[in-house]
Amino acid sequence: MLRPSELRIPICGAPMAGGPSTAALAAAVSDAGGLGFLAAGYKTVDAVAAEIDAVRAVTDAPFGVNLFAPPEVRAPDSAVTGYARRLAADAERYGVALGTPGFDDDHYVAKLELMAGARVPVVSFTFGAPRAESVAALHQRGCAVWVTVTSPDEARAALAAGADALVAQGTEAGGHRAFFRDDAPHEEYGLLVLLRLLAAEAGVPLIAAGGIMDGPGIAAVLCAGAAAAQLGSALMLTPEAATSAPHRERLAQPATTRLTRAFSGRTARGIVNRFMDEHHADAPAAYPQVHHLTTPIRAAARTAGDPEAVNLWAGQGHALARDAPAAELVSGLAASAAQTLAELGRRFPA
Amino acid sequence: MLRPSELRIPICGAPMAGGPSTAALAAAVSDAGGLGFLAAGYKTVDAVAAEIDAVRAVTDAPFGVNLFAPPEVRAPDSAVTGYARRLAADAERYGVALGTPGFDDDHYVAKLELMAGARVPVVSFTFGAPRAESVAALHQRGCAVWVTVTSPDEARAALAAGADALVAQGTEAGGHRAFFRDDAPHEEYGLLVLLRLLAAEAGVPLIAAGGIMDGPGIAAVLCAGAAAAQLGSALMLTPEAATSAPHRERLAQPATTRLTRAFSGRTARGIVNRFMDEHHADAPAAYPQVHHLTTPIRAAARTAGDPEAVNLWAGQGHALARDAPAAELVSGLAASAAQTLAELGRRFPA
Repeated sequence: MLRPSELRIPICGAPMAGGPSTAALAAAVSDAGGLGFLAAGYKTVDAVAAEIDAVRAVTDAPFGVNLFAPPEVRAPDSAVTGYARRLAADAERYGVALGTPGFDDDHYVAKLELMAGARVPVVSFTFGAPRAESVAALHQRGCAVWVTVTSPDEARAALAAGADALVAQGTEAGGHRAFFRDDAPHEEYGLLVLLRLLAAEAGVPLIAAGGIMDGPGIAAVLCAGAAAAQLGSALMLTPEAATSAPHRERLAQPATTRLTRAFSGRTARGIVNRFMDEHHADAPAAYPQVHHLTTPIRAAARTAGDPEAVNLWAGQGHALARDAPAAELVSGLAASAAQTLAELGRRFPA
Repeated sequence: MLRPSELRIPICGAPMAGGPSTAALAAAVSDAGGLGFLAAGYKTVDAVAAEIDAVRAVTDAPFGVNLFAPPEVRAPDSAVTGYARRLAADAERYGVALGTPGFDDDHYVAKLELMAGARVPVVSFTFGAPRAESVAALHQRGCAVWVTVTSPDEARAALAAGADALVAQGTEAGGHRAFFRDDAPHEEYGLLVLLRLLAAEAGVPLIAAGGIMDGPGIAAVLCAGAAAAQLGSALMLTPEAATSAPHRERLAQPATTRLTRAFSGRTARGIVNRFMDEHHADAPAAYPQVHHLTTPIRAAARTAGDPEAVNLWAGQGHALARDAPAAELVSGLAASAAQTLAELGRRFPA
């Protein structure tokens, strides 16, 4: 089973479901010596299988696939229908009907079977830990199991399930917070302190996620105990990413980000825009119903090139993202991290 | 003027107003080669002058004093009286009368004069930047001016005022958030990404604050561009700190922290307790009126050894704090940081 310390370059791509992550991006990161990630979320099982094949057609290097753990609780329909009423004007503005707010598990079991069947080198989880039986089944096929956590409590639950590594997601991260339960109160841990708290008790490798944009940032999380840094926003401007045009435009410049449930019914960090401003306060914790509800609005805005109703997921460091080919970017960042460590080592000799 | 890079040990003590910071703690950190800090907040000018003398009686090493910049806006009295009504039961419970919710500037001008007159090596500011004239007056007496900031926008304002260095305070930090305006909306930047955003444009030394508890954490912020790490919670269990007994007890064990205005009318991070739970939602942005209002309750609870109505300021890493003499602690942390850098440098050669 792959261990993060075996990576030639201590960089993972972040799984960015809903668009940016592509097989080309994952393959480029892996082929450069890091660990590219596919995002299985929102996709059919066949689509995920095709992406796995596409990565393997380009490189023999290991890669990862991220799954959404299924929601544990279903929000009451009344919360969803109330929010749908508030979205009516937006649907009209973009000339679409709201989506059907179904409740589903994103084909969780079938995707788990695909991971094992395809012997995916690293299978990571977001929104919860897999059951111990699922971990055992993945282990049997040589798949390493990584679980994304946002707190020491979630880390304990992930380790109890048998996780081989923890992805420590700080509050800085763009996109969905990996909270196991979105409707519970949360302490929003910054990445650095989260790594130190987990390092004090975890006993498994840590992967750092959230706001890591450059070589010094990577060097920092390695010092703080991470075996590798997971980069999301830092890769979103690469040509291999399928980031939409309005999203690219906003990412590249300074802009406030905020945590909101407005787009999906689950807390996620994105650049503040009109849709977020207008709906943030009313958005219920109702995932994936709200995700389905807003899909047509977001798609229409994206097609129209209008960033004001698109979920502009972005980490807090998004303005530092660079537009460069992924392999070149990742190699350069690793070299810059090593240089940072060398310079600091000279300045503060042990 | 002292530059942070001249410190023998890249560690500053955090100014912890309202109790923990003492002359003995500041002197111990400075004498060990770091930069100790006195907290001028809430004190009379004479008391601050006496603390400066007390530090100088112990060590010739440079040290800092932190001032609260005066509030720019005064909350309406109605907000304060409404909150006072909600605190009546707590006042009764502890057998005290609520404090008088006065509005004041914490003797700002007189404290500025004291800093210049006493030629304090480093004068730092929280809750805002000093005016350019005040910076110039401090510079004339050889005082370096550091301004605590929580965002790139505040950093720009501090630099425009003439700051020599910026203390970058991440959301992880215990105690008051240094927001220039507490009643405005804020992006809660994690420390690591805040350092990278500031490093990209600031052009002055950065001091990192928030959740830094150990050598690897210090190494991390040095990699991220800080010239030094500022430690608060990490010093609160030292014998030199005047941390109250109930506060020490809670700090040493894992416990959730939260940002709240319940105790002071300004956003601050502390360990969740009954008072915070009961009053968080109703607390207005009304500083320092709420601070004065709750002072007798907090003092009575502290005296009674009851942590449930004390402001248990703590950073997110508080459970990693160690009870050791400050000089020994600081020297050991610096050595551990250097060792972390050396090990990582070997693992990732440039």
